[in-house]
Amino acid sequence: MAKVAIMGYGTVGSGVYDIIKKNAEKLCLSSNGERVDLKYILDIREFDDHPEKELFTKDFNDILNDREVSVVAEVMGGLHPAYEFTKSLLESGKSVVTSNKELVATYGVELLEIAREKNVNYLFEASVGGGIPIIRPMHQCLTANNILTIAGILNGTTNYILNEMISKGKTFESALKDAQDKGYAERNPAADIEGHDACRKIAILSSLASGKFVDYNDISTEGITNITSEDVKVANSRGYVIKLIGYAKFTENGRIYSVVAPMMMSKEHPLAKVNGVMNAIMINGDCVGDLMFYGAGAGKMPTASAVVADIVDAVKHKERSKKIFWEKPDENIMASEDDAKFRYVIRTTDSPEKISDIFGEEGNVIDEQNIIFTKPLGTSELKEKLSKLDSVVSYIRFLEDFDNGDE
Amino acid sequence: MAKVAIMGYGTVGSGVYDIIKKNAEKLCLSSNGERVDLKYILDIREFDDHPEKELFTKDFNDILNDREVSVVAEVMGGLHPAYEFTKSLLESGKSVVTSNKELVATYGVELLEIAREKNVNYLFEASVGGGIPIIRPMHQCLTANNILTIAGILNGTTNYILNEMISKGKTFESALKDAQDKGYAERNPAADIEGHDACRKIAILSSLASGKFVDYNDISTEGITNITSEDVKVANSRGYVIKLIGYAKFTENGRIYSVVAPMMMSKEHPLAKVNGVMNAIMINGDCVGDLMFYGAGAGKMPTASAVVADIVDAVKHKERSKKIFWEKPDENIMASEDDAKFRYVIRTTDSPEKISDIFGEEGNVIDEQNIIFTKPLGTSELKEKLSKLDSVVSYIRFLEDFDNGDE
Repeated sequence: MAKVAIMGYGTVGSGVYDIIKKNAEKLCLSSNGERVDLKYILDIREFDDHPEKELFTKDFNDILNDREVSVVAEVMGGLHPAYEFTKSLLESGKSVVTSNKELVATYGVELLEIAREKNVNYLFEASVGGGIPIIRPMHQCLTANNILTIAGILNGTTNYILNEMISKGKTFESALKDAQDKGYAERNPAADIEGHDACRKIAILSSLASGKFVDYNDISTEGITNITSEDVKVANSRGYVIKLIGYAKFTENGRIYSVVAPMMMSKEHPLAKVNGVMNAIMINGDCVGDLMFYGAGAGKMPTASAVVADIVDAVKHKERSKKIFWEKPDENIMASEDDAKFRYVIRTTDSPEKISDIFGEEGNVIDEQNIIFTKPLGTSELKEKLSKLDSVVSYIRFLEDFDNGDE
Repeated sequence: MAKVAIMGYGTVGSGVYDIIKKNAEKLCLSSNGERVDLKYILDIREFDDHPEKELFTKDFNDILNDREVSVVAEVMGGLHPAYEFTKSLLESGKSVVTSNKELVATYGVELLEIAREKNVNYLFEASVGGGIPIIRPMHQCLTANNILTIAGILNGTTNYILNEMISKGKTFESALKDAQDKGYAERNPAADIEGHDACRKIAILSSLASGKFVDYNDISTEGITNITSEDVKVANSRGYVIKLIGYAKFTENGRIYSVVAPMMMSKEHPLAKVNGVMNAIMINGDCVGDLMFYGAGAGKMPTASAVVADIVDAVKHKERSKKIFWEKPDENIMASEDDAKFRYVIRTTDSPEKISDIFGEEGNVIDEQNIIFTKPLGTSELKEKLSKLDSVVSYIRFLEDFDNGDE
């Protein structure tokens, strides 16, 4: 019998509770016959009507000091007190599993190191891609590969908003309001629409792929707030869609280029078909080639599904660290802005002559409507060209093609 | 230092060799610092020009009797002597990893049981979906879920052939010849085009999902040899494509309905976009909803990537069984043909009156060109209706819709 606790009884926490109750037999089988028994739920609110109200506590020390509890699910979110709680639990020899991407991205190095020292586990499958298996496949199934690139739709809220703009011609403001009404976006939507949520997630994936801590503060992050209906229409008329992409490229010299930005891609691109609040993550490995993982990137039950899988894994690996970790690098590992080149589509109101002067060279395509499709450019090259234009209405990166099996 | 051996130096075996040499540093890091050191390669052929020709042996006993060797990659294929070799190795306390779907589907119950008894591992990530991580995600990441359905494009050869028929209007014969010329299809293509390869793979996935041995002989298997250009054209003109699908449905009473057959689906279905020799597997779990895993389902390096990941996992889990297994059920666990209902498209040359007599009821749609789109039917219902028609040109199942995020 493994005694576990849940910290935070919000959307994900209640989903974890539901799964532990509903699929108890299945979990027991998966844990090699050991029952997963819920002993505490930590939450500062009252749950007097809950059928198991005796499980609730407001005192973290009840969990910390109970030697029977071996695994704790931290699904409270936010940095504090989640960080202090997680650290204390790991130090006291309990495994912690989490859906808290902000905590993993910020304090992952330290918490994973403590878990390793204490021979317990700090698992975070639910922190990226909700219910999509991605952390464990990257850590275990792709060990033979050097990861070359990662590109993902990592935020369902922004994908829903862009989708509404694309498929229903809504403005950004109207699509955002709709997302808020449906509960997909928060009242304060900044973390989603400004790309911070996707940034935390690509930072975690980049750290995992490289084994080196990638600080999300070092990742250039652009949200979707500047994407207009006109951008979407221009893309659509030429066979493209715009998606918010978390991107990372691992260079041969061991450096990492990472960016979060709206990117354009062909409608035939597998990521172009990922609609609504779904997520998808493409990974290119030097042996395996292109892979894609697709599923619900958020929501109560999908996210709880990943948290519970981690609970089971922690139960199976009691006092045996899985040794997932990344190290704080001694030197700067971030590649320069020019290490990754992208094609861009640039809209301007400048004269055809001026456009031709700046972009007339081979490889660029100038559209009749003052739209330029550039050849692959580093950021400095791009900036230099943009600085020569009198007006820049918008510029958006292209995501490179993906192997969809066509020849 | 972990000493390993490769049995079979064909396409996959030479890929395993290449990865062990090329990504040695990465593997060492992944194995928690233990070097993966190749000690033997078993093959009956001569490799005198090989840079490490001293590794080759023709005598299986060199590997079996070497106590240093702890992990063996069986990539020789076929049932015999792969079965006898694997059994002897597991019994002598060595872990075995394999890409051999036929062996896993046929002798998996027994070999997994021996591995469990001997506290070693028999791992088979590469047996389904080539380089796509699917076995481990199902076993570890979806533990919280009861799997409800699996539907996959599990055979690249048939997908390539159908793709050529769809996109280039080729006949089946011409597309097959092209696939043979390109090396995608064997000279004797029966295992692929008659669906046997896909059948082995869906049997493995069904066994893994249910924990009960699903005998591939119990899976109704239909290949693509009867699919004509006309079928493909009719589908295309109505917004559908035809793909060979390995399908399994897990009923509430613990039974399994499984079939391999060509199925029609909307062009918007994520599986419809899987072209060429790529594979994709969709899984629906009761908590996580729809997931899709996509990538190269065959080929030297992708398959070897999965084999090497298993080698690393076996090194990390030395003398500690991962306890992946399924049991031989006491009773019949296969659902009846009527437990899963499908919509069908039926082509006939019968008169409109006759068609209307048989299919006039609500839910069926009769197309002007003697094509019937039925409501969901069990196999008995379908057979009964087909028996009433004077002519049946073709009938093809529909694959149900998938959650692509659209509302």
